Amino acid sequence: MSPAADSLTLRRADDFHVHVRQHELMRTVTPMLRLGGIARCLVMPNTQPPITTLSQAITYRAELNDLAPGIEFLMSLYLTPDMATTTIHGAAEAGIAGVKLYPRGVTTHSDEGIDDLEPIYPVFKAMEETGMVLEIHAESPSDHARDICVLNADEDFLPKVGRLHADFPSLRIVFEHVTSAAAVSLVRLLGDTVAATITAHHLDLTVDDWAGKNHNFCKPVAKFPHDRDALRAVVAEGHPRFFLGSDSAPHPVGMKECAEGCAGVFTSPLLLPYLADTFDRLGILDRLEPFVSEFGSKFYDTRPNEETVTLVRREQQVPGTYGPIVPYRAGEKLAWSV
Amino acid sequence: MSPAADSLTLRRADDFHVHVRQHELMRTVTPMLRLGGIARCLVMPNTQPPITTLSQAITYRAELNDLAPGIEFLMSLYLTPDMATTTIHGAAEAGIAGVKLYPRGVTTHSDEGIDDLEPIYPVFKAMEETGMVLEIHAESPSDHARDICVLNADEDFLPKVGRLHADFPSLRIVFEHVTSAAAVSLVRLLGDTVAATITAHHLDLTVDDWAGKNHNFCKPVAKFPHDRDALRAVVAEGHPRFFLGSDSAPHPVGMKECAEGCAGVFTSPLLLPYLADTFDRLGILDRLEPFVSEFGSKFYDTRPNEETVTLVRREQQVPGTYGPIVPYRAGEKLAWSV
Repeated sequence: MSPAADSLTLRRADDFHVHVRQHELMRTVTPMLRLGGIARCLVMPNTQPPITTLSQAITYRAELNDLAPGIEFLMSLYLTPDMATTTIHGAAEAGIAGVKLYPRGVTTHSDEGIDDLEPIYPVFKAMEETGMVLEIHAESPSDHARDICVLNADEDFLPKVGRLHADFPSLRIVFEHVTSAAAVSLVRLLGDTVAATITAHHLDLTVDDWAGKNHNFCKPVAKFPHDRDALRAVVAEGHPRFFLGSDSAPHPVGMKECAEGCAGVFTSPLLLPYLADTFDRLGILDRLEPFVSEFGSKFYDTRPNEETVTLVRREQQVPGTYGPIVPYRAGEKLAWSV
Repeated sequence: MSPAADSLTLRRADDFHVHVRQHELMRTVTPMLRLGGIARCLVMPNTQPPITTLSQAITYRAELNDLAPGIEFLMSLYLTPDMATTTIHGAAEAGIAGVKLYPRGVTTHSDEGIDDLEPIYPVFKAMEETGMVLEIHAESPSDHARDICVLNADEDFLPKVGRLHADFPSLRIVFEHVTSAAAVSLVRLLGDTVAATITAHHLDLTVDDWAGKNHNFCKPVAKFPHDRDALRAVVAEGHPRFFLGSDSAPHPVGMKECAEGCAGVFTSPLLLPYLADTFDRLGILDRLEPFVSEFGSKFYDTRPNEETVTLVRREQQVPGTYGPIVPYRAGEKLAWSV
């Protein structure tokens, strides 16, 4: 594809990190996934209650399949301190793709997450043996006595990822939604079993964009310009261990435009247009297809999507709302449409 | 006063940085100044239009005097690129206390502010000669190509303050609302004609407290824990060139709990209780009186307030609202009351 091309046909995308929620919100957002140009997604398990068992995951997947028959849903279990290795073996046999590690208290619904990694080692061992992927929300909880806050929470967590990789070199680890130059550097340095997801919005935002602007507030927070530039650089380079995970995280508008807004940016219904707009601005449109539909699929060892989607260079305005949800860049113009 | 004392009588406070707004909002907040325990305040000129002339300042002061006869209002002019030295001479003769420098585009109503300092040198010279104080909102506008954003905007501006002090060593300069360890260090290093104001809220907040929490969002933003700790340390030390400037900045609730919240924290009606609560927690209650009613008065060369105010150790709950405004720490308990 030449940079000046007016259309771009690519394999439908994989979104290796999406929140589709529950109940009414789930019924609203799940049918929008295909609009954004994806064919497959990895569903996050931080529901209420969290998805901690195989049967919960199967029930959840069945609900999602009914709502969006054109999407393949990969499922992830929520890692709790008391997860049994038998759960891992059963989940692996049933085709559950991964297990998500939330440090306790770092983001939405992480209250049942993990404090210490060492006690979980038997579970990691079982995952390594069965080939399951460990997805990590790699942030430390804030600890002001150690100068840890939302801005350096991921940097503080990096040694734990390095240690885990050293102890389980064959365990596939995904460093979810990288936001800092330091995290990008670490993932580059580690071996082929460590990858990272990058969201659409973190390729554009810095702290300036969420200071006072609730709809751009998410966890991990967008950081300094040089951090955003490190994300852009690794994507521009076409590094095969950095791929799309949108972290699309819808909240009703009343939960965002209030005294204490929830963390999350909603990108699902326009996911590929957002990305095409950004990649085009950065002059790296040729990097789009591998980022959204090759690298992740290869890392997760899934077959590439057969179905294609065509993006056209046709301006569209992002709607002000999708139902009760204000999307990312609401009201702004995007240069590309599905 | 012993640390365990249950009451504390001190000179009424000086608030050397307050926004009392205009119109209806002015009529709401101005009468609340005395409730917070102050007797004198320096009024910021970033109204609409800004207070750029002596006659505007005199008119504004008369309005404020009517609304709060028990408060002495010190006035500051808004520095624009075209301010004449004759304005400075006239203002000095009329008792205007200072001139406020806003770099263009850094905060609420700074669109008519300054890009370059060099062309303003004749004005600074006139200020130095007439003994007026230059108050600086010491932040650079964001410039992502240089990695400048709200988190390091003040650090980037520091060399300009140092240069100004070197070029006008007798000009009294106030580095308004310091928020970073770097800014504290600079002000410490510079000579006796350079001081800094510190707000009540920046002694408590870090970035964690405004991430998603609109009522704590202000400019400059609260930064890392180590930055807050540097503010606490310089106050605990009783450094005489660091004194109270609350930057109390009211906005109606609808301008805060929305998609793009205005910057500003409203502290005026409980200013001394907020501070006493914080100083008590930090075990530095004996530093309160000099911080709020001696150091600033000395720097500005005003006579000390004669009137006293008594703080008592009596728990109170911060109201959810004052008229249309949500105050700082709304609904929380404070250990001290006026």
